[in-house]
Amino acid sequence: MPNSAKVQALLFDVYGTLFDVHSVVQQCEQQFPGKGVALSQLWRTKQLEYTWQRSLMHRYEPFHVVTRAALRVACRALALEASAAVLDQLIGAYLHLKPYPDTVPALQQLKKMPLAVFSNGSLQMLGPLLANAGIEKYMSHVISVDEIHVFKPDPRVYALGCQRLGVEAKQVALVSSNFWDICGARAYGMQAFWINRTGAGMDELGFEPTAVFASLTQMADQLA
Amino acid sequence: MPNSAKVQALLFDVYGTLFDVHSVVQQCEQQFPGKGVALSQLWRTKQLEYTWQRSLMHRYEPFHVVTRAALRVACRALALEASAAVLDQLIGAYLHLKPYPDTVPALQQLKKMPLAVFSNGSLQMLGPLLANAGIEKYMSHVISVDEIHVFKPDPRVYALGCQRLGVEAKQVALVSSNFWDICGARAYGMQAFWINRTGAGMDELGFEPTAVFASLTQMADQLA
Repeated sequence: MPNSAKVQALLFDVYGTLFDVHSVVQQCEQQFPGKGVALSQLWRTKQLEYTWQRSLMHRYEPFHVVTRAALRVACRALALEASAAVLDQLIGAYLHLKPYPDTVPALQQLKKMPLAVFSNGSLQMLGPLLANAGIEKYMSHVISVDEIHVFKPDPRVYALGCQRLGVEAKQVALVSSNFWDICGARAYGMQAFWINRTGAGMDELGFEPTAVFASLTQMADQLA
Repeated sequence: MPNSAKVQALLFDVYGTLFDVHSVVQQCEQQFPGKGVALSQLWRTKQLEYTWQRSLMHRYEPFHVVTRAALRVACRALALEASAAVLDQLIGAYLHLKPYPDTVPALQQLKKMPLAVFSNGSLQMLGPLLANAGIEKYMSHVISVDEIHVFKPDPRVYALGCQRLGVEAKQVALVSSNFWDICGARAYGMQAFWINRTGAGMDELGFEPTAVFASLTQMADQLA
């Protein structure tokens, strides 16, 4: 792993990296039997598309607003009738997402390094989520794009991460399972560790990760 | 249809609006039996994602480059082995997409208005495509985002359209089947006619079309 010696701090993506966004499948399935997986997938797809499209249009709305809109649209597209109460319940599940099994053990191993949360999520989503999972204590900073009103992978997001940590881009590594996030960090000059738990292929966006790991604990072993 | 009297020119989106991007299914199916639909869909999904992500990262590449990268990645994700020759053949099919059945009749009806092509596509893709379908003759301008190196729905794209036509935003209507394109135009202050051939639901991005039509000919009937 070239350059790893220089890494002075880690920025952790949250949704899809520390937490499994598809852990809402169970609640989706309870509300809409037989449709849980399809709803969870379309919800996530729309959520991400809206972050990119809103950023490009200069029409930012906080992630909890985007996430709720994405859920409504996904329900409609799948012809699922969701009352306000059902929407509330499913959105509530987003505050209780499950961390991946490797998340807490890896943070425990890495706790001597400066670690920060670095997320599209708004603080009103991140606060309860991190508290519910007992993860806040490992983090020196909780950095949200909500401060600058644009989503990843806009370069201003990665600039914010460096600024808040007080480090140069090349001294910090983004840790993310989202390949476009990895590319955004690399484009800005950060290092980027891709957590590829599923054996996915790389996207072709002109950038590659600094290193690839099959799990957060595999990364922690290398860095420790 | 409010405001239609004020529309002085129409800007036509190309991929998905005048031409059916999924008319490549047949060629995909020939190369990879049983996988044609899945490949065509993932190819399109990746193509659009890359336009948004590259724009956000300030790492524009022309649409033909993005389209080829999206095809390679889609093939790999579906475990389809595609030689350079097969990739060339499928990319070639993108220059021979089929216009929708309502495209030429509608352009014929509307030909007294200033009509322009307004596309993410680079001129080296649009030229052959429009020529092969005999559509160039209806268009006063062929406007490509390649001139400004950012993709839809960035507001600079819609500004380019107005500037090239020499009209104010409110006097021009975008015609598109892509809802995020509609939102980009509305966010810039254009009118926007959504061609919704499939009865799709609206996305929730804070904007609605000026009017919705089930086909280009239905729109042409109203405007004629």
